[in-house]
Amino acid sequence: MKIICKKSNLQEAVFISQKAITGKSSMPILNGLKITAVNNKLTLIGSDIDLSIETKIDSNVEEEGTVVIDARLFGEIIRKLPGEDVSISTVENNSLEILCQKSKFNLIHMNAEDFPEVPNINENMIFSMPQKILKNMIKSVIFATAQDETRPVLTGVLFEIKDKNLNLVALDGYRLALKSEYLNTNNTINAVIPGKTLNEVSKILEDNDKDVNITFTPNHILFNLVNTKIVSRLLEGEFIKYNSIIPEEFNTIVTAKKDELLDCIERASLMAKDSNTNLVKLDLEEGNMIITSNSQLGMVREELNIILQGDTLQIAFNSKYLIDVLKIMDEEEITLKFSSNVSPCIIKNKIKDNCTYLVLPVRLLNS
Amino acid sequence: MKIICKKSNLQEAVFISQKAITGKSSMPILNGLKITAVNNKLTLIGSDIDLSIETKIDSNVEEEGTVVIDARLFGEIIRKLPGEDVSISTVENNSLEILCQKSKFNLIHMNAEDFPEVPNINENMIFSMPQKILKNMIKSVIFATAQDETRPVLTGVLFEIKDKNLNLVALDGYRLALKSEYLNTNNTINAVIPGKTLNEVSKILEDNDKDVNITFTPNHILFNLVNTKIVSRLLEGEFIKYNSIIPEEFNTIVTAKKDELLDCIERASLMAKDSNTNLVKLDLEEGNMIITSNSQLGMVREELNIILQGDTLQIAFNSKYLIDVLKIMDEEEITLKFSSNVSPCIIKNKIKDNCTYLVLPVRLLNS
Repeated sequence: MKIICKKSNLQEAVFISQKAITGKSSMPILNGLKITAVNNKLTLIGSDIDLSIETKIDSNVEEEGTVVIDARLFGEIIRKLPGEDVSISTVENNSLEILCQKSKFNLIHMNAEDFPEVPNINENMIFSMPQKILKNMIKSVIFATAQDETRPVLTGVLFEIKDKNLNLVALDGYRLALKSEYLNTNNTINAVIPGKTLNEVSKILEDNDKDVNITFTPNHILFNLVNTKIVSRLLEGEFIKYNSIIPEEFNTIVTAKKDELLDCIERASLMAKDSNTNLVKLDLEEGNMIITSNSQLGMVREELNIILQGDTLQIAFNSKYLIDVLKIMDEEEITLKFSSNVSPCIIKNKIKDNCTYLVLPVRLLNS
Repeated sequence: MKIICKKSNLQEAVFISQKAITGKSSMPILNGLKITAVNNKLTLIGSDIDLSIETKIDSNVEEEGTVVIDARLFGEIIRKLPGEDVSISTVENNSLEILCQKSKFNLIHMNAEDFPEVPNINENMIFSMPQKILKNMIKSVIFATAQDETRPVLTGVLFEIKDKNLNLVALDGYRLALKSEYLNTNNTINAVIPGKTLNEVSKILEDNDKDVNITFTPNHILFNLVNTKIVSRLLEGEFIKYNSIIPEEFNTIVTAKKDELLDCIERASLMAKDSNTNLVKLDLEEGNMIITSNSQLGMVREELNIILQGDTLQIAFNSKYLIDVLKIMDEEEITLKFSSNVSPCIIKNKIKDNCTYLVLPVRLLNS
């Protein structure tokens, strides 16, 4: 292999492909980037077997070839090189020579044949959507994925395509997040993508209107962003029928200013941190919500204006779950709907009806 | 106690006085801020016994008094309050009530009598200097203090006042940092200030020409910034006679561009990280410095233009020590002076002669 490329392009490509590498693998080859030079393109692939990220840059290829090189070290070296033109070539002793102005590195490389194959995916059924929309959808639900592995399928996000809608759903037994956007297709899909994959995908997606193409196979999903392809295995197992756990009848409906409510709950949670459950109590009255919390450190009382429809209610929550939801919502006014103080609370934007959050209350001893 | 003050002033005062609190003490009272309201001033004191920081703000005092309150929690609450006017008063049940708009907190407070006394210092011998100069002096030497407690006096910085100069000196057995500035006094002083104290002092000092007044007693130092006073005990034990270890005769003198040398050594150190000593080798030749390093990951060679006076030399260093020094120096061109590859290297600015850095080389097996 012998190539010349631009430092800035290479640095960006390392930054992207490296996101598949967890650094926790016991297989040294999985700490490496596979670099392939062919047809005046340089292809970098990072992989942890379940997730592979492949990205291509232009490069002047004088001699084709493939190597695997330690990703972290290679990335640090490229980032610190003194100039813009970088020359990279294989030399004797399993060594990769990196030249830039008066800097010369010789890195021991690994055997490219040991690197896992990226699943070959036939892109015959493609859904497309603007990158910024998918990025926002992922951000809107991913916080609600389960963090423990008791039920592995809940560590992922359900991609459900039906009725010309893409629905993303995450839930962990205490809360649920659902976000929907229009998708121009008559197909239906039900697949669960690992949370880790979507975390990395959302970092790579840009905040613009360029399309990302999505392809599903029975075991994999492919996100294609022209120069970058992300392939991830799907999670096995059946996702919870989320529709059946979202209540539809309510006795108490509250309209509140989102930022004001968030601030009040964040302040109240300062006193709640001492306990395990971050418990805050909400008193929903005509025109007012009173939020209280107390611990051995002391107590707090917050009050904010609301519009109440229906019955007054006293209900308690783990403040963390409310804060997670309120931080991610983007409308100024929101509605909270309750049926009782032991039933789930539903939180929605007041106007745009494309997201639904559900939070379970904490049952109080005296309720 | 009953007072009204501005949130922004109180937040700043908590931020400053909290810096004395390590959070590691087994005495709960040392996690507290002592708050005293008297004469329309609110005084906040944080202390870890060795170090006390006291700061005053204006406040409307309706009823005088003193309490001790958990610093972390109090600080978080003040920071998140919704408005600018904060009312604070002691109420029943050892409780401090904090009121701001519709937010009300009641915090259990501690007994002010248990709080350690701040040493009373008679400010009869004062040295003054602009805050930004002292801030810069501390930054220039503090990295060279010893991190382990084998010789406790070396975890501090020597303040030496003589010949109308303030010299700050830190050394840890592998490197030494000395910075000097003019001080208008005929007194002499020799005192060692704990590194932890100076770390906090340098964060509190502002980047401006306002004076800081410094007073020494046999056991303490006081930094007085008008509204803030910092009192620290001195370290006991005699500091090393640093002058005797700075060589004065050299066989090799190198002039180099500081940023270029720093970049080369940082790149070379990427390959050196694998080893314990971060070893980089310098080859000093007519017109050129060659920097090399190698490990089982591979090798690197860097080259930069220098002016060499005297003998050529091959010498090796722990790259971390060179990088620490070069990062802190502020002139474009520097000189490095050597007598042999087993003697200390002296690094100075090319022009302004108010700092001296010394770094010990690493002895190579074949030298």
